[in-house]
Amino acid sequence: MKSFGENPDPVVVLMTDFGVKDTYVGQMKAVILSICPKVHIVDLTHAVTPQHVVLGAFFLERSLPFLPPHSIVVCVVDPGVGTARKPLALSTGCHTFLGPDNGLLTPVLEMTGLRGCVSITNPDIMLPERSSTFHGRDIFSPAAAHLAGGFPFWKLGEPEDPSSCVRLPSRGCRVKADGTIEGNVLFTDHFGNLVTTIDTSLCLNHREWFTEAEGIPPLPLVETYGNAQEGELLAYGGSFGTVEIAVRNGSAADRTGIQNGSQVRLVRRSKTVTGNGETKA
Amino acid sequence: MKSFGENPDPVVVLMTDFGVKDTYVGQMKAVILSICPKVHIVDLTHAVTPQHVVLGAFFLERSLPFLPPHSIVVCVVDPGVGTARKPLALSTGCHTFLGPDNGLLTPVLEMTGLRGCVSITNPDIMLPERSSTFHGRDIFSPAAAHLAGGFPFWKLGEPEDPSSCVRLPSRGCRVKADGTIEGNVLFTDHFGNLVTTIDTSLCLNHREWFTEAEGIPPLPLVETYGNAQEGELLAYGGSFGTVEIAVRNGSAADRTGIQNGSQVRLVRRSKTVTGNGETKA
Amino acid sequence: MKSFGENPDPVVVLMTDFGVKDTYVGQMKAVILSICPKVHIVDLTHAVTPQHVVLGAFFLERSLPFLPPHSIVVCVVDPGVGTARKPLALSTGCHTFLGPDNGLLTPVLEMTGLRGCVSITNPDIMLPERSSTFHGRDIFSPAAAHLAGGFPFWKLGEPEDPSSCVRLPSRGCRVKADGTIEGNVLFTDHFGNLVTTIDTSLCLNHREWFTEAEGIPPLPLVETYGNAQEGELLAYGGSFGTVEIAVRNGSAADRTGIQNGSQVRLVRRSKTVTGNGETKA
Repeated sequence: MKSFGENPDPVVVLMTDFGVKDTYVGQMKAVILSICPKVHIVDLTHAVTPQHVVLGAFFLERSLPFLPPHSIVVCVVDPGVGTARKPLALSTGCHTFLGPDNGLLTPVLEMTGLRGCVSITNPDIMLPERSSTFHGRDIFSPAAAHLAGGFPFWKLGEPEDPSSCVRLPSRGCRVKADGTIEGNVLFTDHFGNLVTTIDTSLCLNHREWFTEAEGIPPLPLVETYGNAQEGELLAYGGSFGTVEIAVRNGSAADRTGIQNGSQVRLVRRSKTVTGNGETKA
Repeated sequence: MKSFGENPDPVVVLMTDFGVKDTYVGQMKAVILSICPKVHIVDLTHAVTPQHVVLGAFFLERSLPFLPPHSIVVCVVDPGVGTARKPLALSTGCHTFLGPDNGLLTPVLEMTGLRGCVSITNPDIMLPERSSTFHGRDIFSPAAAHLAGGFPFWKLGEPEDPSSCVRLPSRGCRVKADGTIEGNVLFTDHFGNLVTTIDTSLCLNHREWFTEAEGIPPLPLVETYGNAQEGELLAYGGSFGTVEIAVRNGSAADRTGIQNGSQVRLVRRSKTVTGNGETKA
Repeated sequence: MKSFGENPDPVVVLMTDFGVKDTYVGQMKAVILSICPKVHIVDLTHAVTPQHVVLGAFFLERSLPFLPPHSIVVCVVDPGVGTARKPLALSTGCHTFLGPDNGLLTPVLEMTGLRGCVSITNPDIMLPERSSTFHGRDIFSPAAAHLAGGFPFWKLGEPEDPSSCVRLPSRGCRVKADGTIEGNVLFTDHFGNLVTTIDTSLCLNHREWFTEAEGIPPLPLVETYGNAQEGELLAYGGSFGTVEIAVRNGSAADRTGIQNGSQVRLVRRSKTVTGNGETKA
């Protein structure tokens, strides 16, 4: 893969739970372009479930491999806005991440290459009038735009010890003594696919595994939608790098009634399985 | 706050009631970039309630302080599209606003610094084929793109007297003789927060006020979500500069059943209030 | 109409059924800007009904006249992702279109000016790790970004015979022996307008036609919304170039209960019609 373009315009990536029903996101973008007009703004998503910090952190973690080099990533899922929780900025050298100190930036805090950590306190890079309810517009966006314009990271505020920042507990994905992997449904995507917390990397040889969840028959792990018949349930390693349950050309959420948070188990096929089982040792 | 970048690329801001379920907005953007490829396009929102000119005007008014300098703002909430209502262009020197003459641009018409007002009639800056149903694509977008490319404002069409343009009546926000402020719920935001028409500037010292609405207990005006317990109702000065009613980490619309249009009152705390009241003169 | 700007930045247009509830589209954009940072990305829409290839092809066809010159158009409605269906790239000289070989690109395949047709097989222009479920991110987006950066079209993969590519049957829009035009409701737009498959070009002189559908009275074809009273049903030539049924300032879908797929007929007014009929030969 080649890369085109030297000294490109800076990129600001936005991820929030603000939705697009109002002008919240639009005002953030207006603020950014007011300060740094040459920036390219990318919406990672604004549809994190409101106040669902865990889902925001998951979306961020799974998008890290795709972020443009040198981009500035503004993450706002911030139920504590206006309280004592700190607005953070983290630098990895390659990217800068801005967001509240509430666990949302956990995937960045756990990177080995973390180079800088500050709380954003410098009023020079905030809007002059700041609300108590919308730091996305009044603090994080102008801070990101200043960084995009070349403002030095370390002047955003006070250095912080990354080990004192809030981190989320690890996602529910446990390998048990008998080799079974237990996780749960983290969210339901646009298609009605049930996206679980179970990393596909734990069950790479998909032919060896069955997926189990309440109220549905065990599903062999397959490669992609086309391995199922129209309207049939299937389980596979999905686009987030975790196991998903879907209905081909339909909605697994509607079909199964399985809710977010429900337990899902990956069970290794018995080596003596016959019939539909493809392995027989 | 610094500003970065000289002679930046022009910015076109879009606000419509077109939603994002179809290609309406996408076609507008395609038209703009066809004519002026160097433009940056910002979505303020496309989720104005269909045909809700009053809400569109409110979103515009409350976003004015954040608009990028020299941006061109295309506003389309246009139930009279294809009729005799005029397509307008307004210049304030700092910004240009395009939209139908139906009251949507009231906040701009009421600015003291209004410098230019024309009806858009010049066919040279419209698409050659024009529908009767989509002037957002066929007239407003190409006009905006021409302005972005340097086309002179005054050549868009015929000069109009701004005093003859349609203006909305003022929003329902009245201060009564006894000091009580009456307004109503203008809309419900993405989080289920009830956004009222009552300007926070009328009750700046928030500790002095209670918020009253049908079917809920009087709520002291507080600073931000964190001042309430998880799941608790609260009232506060919100991100639009007006009083809002919310549930911390929940939806006030779902909880209270309060509908858009419902009356809301801000009542000054009696100076003899005791108990939960914080003031006692 | 003038055009502004020489040697502009390249434009990539995206049309998918991915919705904006997740990070699917955001990851595509991140990939594109990682490879070619100078690109402008336009969302045509991400709200094609999931797996509805016919609707995607319609949106594409009706947007062709508005696409920026030299833009690269990425179309992903791809129920067969990860199977043997080929990822295609088509060049018309003016535009390049990328998408699965499942009929989605039919409007491009039927252009007289088609200049190039390849299946995308070159791993150099794909992400190094490719999922079986998200070729939008892993194949189509990086291929588009490479083209935007100047990568030669013919090096994307293997030449294909366009006549062997999958094409959709023509949309249901038939002119019967008696001159009646039969079609159906293709989809319901954001406003609740019922968008049919009947090309307005077949009934240009709108005063001569009535629109008929199950359960509603015959509607004279009018010019625009303003020709009906508030809340009244009307039929007119809409923004997609086809006949639509709407309720002025309301939702025709809610009012009539007419479903997508329902039959709609355009019937020429009898030349002896009197009463409401405007013609009398």
